[in-house]
Amino acid sequence: MTTVTNTRFLDACRRREVDRTPVWFMRQAGRYMAEYRRLREKHSLLELCRTPDLATEVTLQPLRRIDVDAAILFSDLLLPLEPMGLPFDFIAGEGPAIETPLRSAWDIDRLRPFDPRESLAHVLQTIRQVKRELQGRVPLIGFTGAPFTLASYAIEGGPSSNYAQTKTLMYGQPEAWHRLCGRLAAMAGDYLNAQIDAGVDAVQVFDSWVGALNAADYREFVLPHTRRIFEAVGGRVPTIHFGTGTSMLLEELRDAGGEVIGVDWRIPLDDAWTRIGHDRAVQGNLDPTLLLGPIERLLDAAEDVLARADGRPGHIFNLGHGILPSTPLEHVQLLAEHVHAVTRRPAPESGSPAGAG
Amino acid sequence: MTTVTNTRFLDACRRREVDRTPVWFMRQAGRYMAEYRRLREKHSLLELCRTPDLATEVTLQPLRRIDVDAAILFSDLLLPLEPMGLPFDFIAGEGPAIETPLRSAWDIDRLRPFDPRESLAHVLQTIRQVKRELQGRVPLIGFTGAPFTLASYAIEGGPSSNYAQTKTLMYGQPEAWHRLCGRLAAMAGDYLNAQIDAGVDAVQVFDSWVGALNAADYREFVLPHTRRIFEAVGGRVPTIHFGTGTSMLLEELRDAGGEVIGVDWRIPLDDAWTRIGHDRAVQGNLDPTLLLGPIERLLDAAEDVLARADGRPGHIFNLGHGILPSTPLEHVQLLAEHVHAVTRRPAPESGSPAGAG
Repeated sequence: MTTVTNTRFLDACRRREVDRTPVWFMRQAGRYMAEYRRLREKHSLLELCRTPDLATEVTLQPLRRIDVDAAILFSDLLLPLEPMGLPFDFIAGEGPAIETPLRSAWDIDRLRPFDPRESLAHVLQTIRQVKRELQGRVPLIGFTGAPFTLASYAIEGGPSSNYAQTKTLMYGQPEAWHRLCGRLAAMAGDYLNAQIDAGVDAVQVFDSWVGALNAADYREFVLPHTRRIFEAVGGRVPTIHFGTGTSMLLEELRDAGGEVIGVDWRIPLDDAWTRIGHDRAVQGNLDPTLLLGPIERLLDAAEDVLARADGRPGHIFNLGHGILPSTPLEHVQLLAEHVHAVTRRPAPESGSPAGAG
Repeated sequence: MTTVTNTRFLDACRRREVDRTPVWFMRQAGRYMAEYRRLREKHSLLELCRTPDLATEVTLQPLRRIDVDAAILFSDLLLPLEPMGLPFDFIAGEGPAIETPLRSAWDIDRLRPFDPRESLAHVLQTIRQVKRELQGRVPLIGFTGAPFTLASYAIEGGPSSNYAQTKTLMYGQPEAWHRLCGRLAAMAGDYLNAQIDAGVDAVQVFDSWVGALNAADYREFVLPHTRRIFEAVGGRVPTIHFGTGTSMLLEELRDAGGEVIGVDWRIPLDDAWTRIGHDRAVQGNLDPTLLLGPIERLLDAAEDVLARADGRPGHIFNLGHGILPSTPLEHVQLLAEHVHAVTRRPAPESGSPAGAG
């Protein structure tokens, strides 16, 4: 296996000293890039995800244009739902739509276990192709959805503003809820291990919508399941645990697992890191709308994030959520360069231990 | 003017001792009630809002069925946008749609000032009719949208998941943003004073979507404007300041104003109240999806909210957001009765001072 040359991201995950703060962006491959939009004129989103040559190309597009320290697999959170028995499609302007959403315990018990090495072989093939093309230039991040976020899509049938049906199942049929989340967690752990076997260097668990819950409900209904995913990975590669709107859940996300905890823009990074504890790394936390401009405010806000990280080992610069489609590419390029420029430090000795600084 | 007989709600706003914890529900008039749905078969939402006889009827419907301690004016946050020059309608299944959303400083400078006593005379007429019908049985709450939430509708043209265009104006043209919010705040203050002149006994300022901001942005872009609304009311009646997803903004909402701070379900009420300070009253904070059932969990969760309020004067029981359309009426009835039953206290001496308990 090729050794990764740029280890900033992986070193920061392990809270080792780095020569510059590593940067990558959620949704760094996507509609804000002209080369992505050209591919989307010819192919649907699902075609891009399911065709290894295309998914490889899209994964690599941002690396040719932006000075990021990691690639992230181009894929979709919902891909595992189809082999479980929940086919879906993307409706223009509306997002994902599950054909027949889960509504009952009976629906849940009909979900099928599947082997990602067979049913999602195209994802694993993409990983192998991306790794070959990268030639160790930067590490590759794999990912999965977390049980709450996947369950919310499966139950609501698409995006939701209030998660009413999800919570109705959760509060009303807790045994069915726990069976569903148990299956989703087992699937996610297996899927991440298959991605690691195929070559990803780190994994991110996306619990994007878990900010709809309070801490007590998170501990009762989510934490035990999400924890199983991190246990399944068992330290094989660094793990990132991400959510949005989680200002009141940071300790709970930490307790569920993840060497790196993702933080969105709603809370200052220093406050978040203190609450999470400095024995974990953190990732974040610029508001993605700042990338729309103006540049002066964008760079000031990025410097504020860096000042709050205070040069402490274990900060990965990122947004609080994905890049928006209307973002100018030049702003993304400038932001990555700026973060690298202002965090330039003497190169650390190889393999200096976590927390040594 | 008729004296209000049931003063629990108004006493709690002023942190006076009460014989039972007062209860009302956001969106207590609405689609979950059969009598409301029957009216909606014949009339659009805007017709209901604009016709004093109908708006009066809808305002009173929940009072005939549920043991609540306050009525809230049936109206819509967006009504003031039309006389400002931003007509809108409600699209079935999608919510409000502004015909021509604000996009530039030029659009903002074309907004018209208006006199709510003329352009929204039907709202004031509804207030007078409701007050006559109530005969002082319970107090009537009036309301307005806050600048951020109104601006987000005016700019996005409807609901938004990321407020990208709103923040683009905010970050990119801060002078235009402040002019817009200044106008919205002046309008809101004038509108609330007109409602108070017409007879409302308290007012709530809805900043429903302000949880999209962090504290620094709130202080820079929102707080000075929202504060002007509370200053305009000048203590004439009790004021409530409400938002959702504000776990990281409670101190900022408090500093902007409001004798009562609304708290959503994402943060435990005791933690929220400690951060807000016990020199303010609080309103909340049950997750509205709990009303979908099961009843045991609903009542347990309500008792948890009450335990966290700890009998301290100044708690108004409410949800963290509005009642959902699929809610069974019997659950709402039961919840109001239960809160009253378990918080029964000896009747306080009339006019006992704030904080005496």
